[in-house]
Amino acid sequence: MAEHNHGGGQGTLYVVGTGPGSLEHLTPAAAKALQQADVVVGYRTYLDLISDFLVNKEVIASEMMKEVDRCRQSLELASSGKLVALVSGGDPGIYAMAGLVFEMAKDLDSSCNIEVVPGIAAVNGCAARLGAPLMHDFAAVSLSDLLTPWPVIEKRLNAVAMADFVCAIYNPKSKKRTEQIVKAREIFLAHRDPQTPVGIVSAATRENEYIQLTTLEDMLDADINMQSTVIIGNSQSYVWKGKMITPRGYAEKYQLK
Amino acid sequence: MAEHNHGGGQGTLYVVGTGPGSLEHLTPAAAKALQQADVVVGYRTYLDLISDFLVNKEVIASEMMKEVDRCRQSLELASSGKLVALVSGGDPGIYAMAGLVFEMAKDLDSSCNIEVVPGIAAVNGCAARLGAPLMHDFAAVSLSDLLTPWPVIEKRLNAVAMADFVCAIYNPKSKKRTEQIVKAREIFLAHRDPQTPVGIVSAATRENEYIQLTTLEDMLDADINMQSTVIIGNSQSYVWKGKMITPRGYAEKYQLK
Repeated sequence: MAEHNHGGGQGTLYVVGTGPGSLEHLTPAAAKALQQADVVVGYRTYLDLISDFLVNKEVIASEMMKEVDRCRQSLELASSGKLVALVSGGDPGIYAMAGLVFEMAKDLDSSCNIEVVPGIAAVNGCAARLGAPLMHDFAAVSLSDLLTPWPVIEKRLNAVAMADFVCAIYNPKSKKRTEQIVKAREIFLAHRDPQTPVGIVSAATRENEYIQLTTLEDMLDADINMQSTVIIGNSQSYVWKGKMITPRGYAEKYQLK
Repeated sequence: MAEHNHGGGQGTLYVVGTGPGSLEHLTPAAAKALQQADVVVGYRTYLDLISDFLVNKEVIASEMMKEVDRCRQSLELASSGKLVALVSGGDPGIYAMAGLVFEMAKDLDSSCNIEVVPGIAAVNGCAARLGAPLMHDFAAVSLSDLLTPWPVIEKRLNAVAMADFVCAIYNPKSKKRTEQIVKAREIFLAHRDPQTPVGIVSAATRENEYIQLTTLEDMLDADINMQSTVIIGNSQSYVWKGKMITPRGYAEKYQLK
């Protein structure tokens, strides 16, 4: 991690991944960035999960959907010479804050030092709780059509279903957005066995963690919400003793060099 | 993490992700599993990176390509009642040890308690060092045709190139296997601008870390080896001040709810 000169003009912004929820999965690099920061900025729910690190610390908590404000504020504070930690749940580089920070820094022609501190992403945390569902080639697709037109999302779902990728679905469903997961299932059913295993992990590693193992056929009966990641297996995935497993390859078993 | 009864019959096997290399990115959960373990099993190079955790510890180090032996030995030791930590670089659930452990446990009808401790995967570690190259929908594809027939890999590369996924390429090239990355580039060039940014991170977060930013056109001139992860941008990716950035969406800039 870069050394920071607190007196210096340009400031530093750490975009810090705090992992799926439990502090057990927050890295020492992330902890150090939080501890060193003059100011910690983040969405209130994520900040509540890391309150141990926020004692006697200047904290700017905001509500959901205020990503743009959080980024701008973080860049402004860093530009004023402060050491800022902008908190992102999971990994900041996957559907999270890192991209927006750089996009905005470019527009503002910011000269801040921006450093991304990786975190355990939802896809990794959820996979670990399910067993070994990814293992092989996989794709992450978000079903949120807020920033991406649905035809693009549909094209991607078709591509990964056709090419037998394991698929991790982010943002599968919200209270208002319920139809996308129905369509996604239909797309996969056109290419895969209805009995293909599907794992759903909600609030992975948190107190309210909830793990469901189902199939492509029955997945719509499961409880899927804003905190869920859905992992659809490939043609080789199977379930054994409550674990979802994708073999490492298509070649003969164990034939590893 | 589950409580372990050292006297008990069935034993526990932790499959522990140690992250990309630097101990700064090894989670407390992984550290705890290593500290609690009676025996730590792993590939020598990964064990060298975590030697701080191995003092006064029974360690079984093996050479590369001995995955099957490591898994079998770990399961046998756990079955004998020991608390075993099987070490995996990066995240055990992505092209690593978790899948093989479950496959083998199933074949042996093992009753061990198997728990996967997630780690920062190469794709997350490398992305953080490059800036924010993933951000949006992405796919991970391994170019190793040791366990997967090349036509399957080629089909997947075509699918992700066609559907405008950011693509993280694992196992891009080894001393003996040099042609796959050439073919992969050709496939992407059929769908994307030759100036599409390509980021290559070798030995991310380790002492010999090496970051290269290039383009689809010029990527074969870069130094790509067994320790490299290659990230090919999508149609929206760009480079700013040495950082590779993929915008969060295709919709109008910053238009977030």
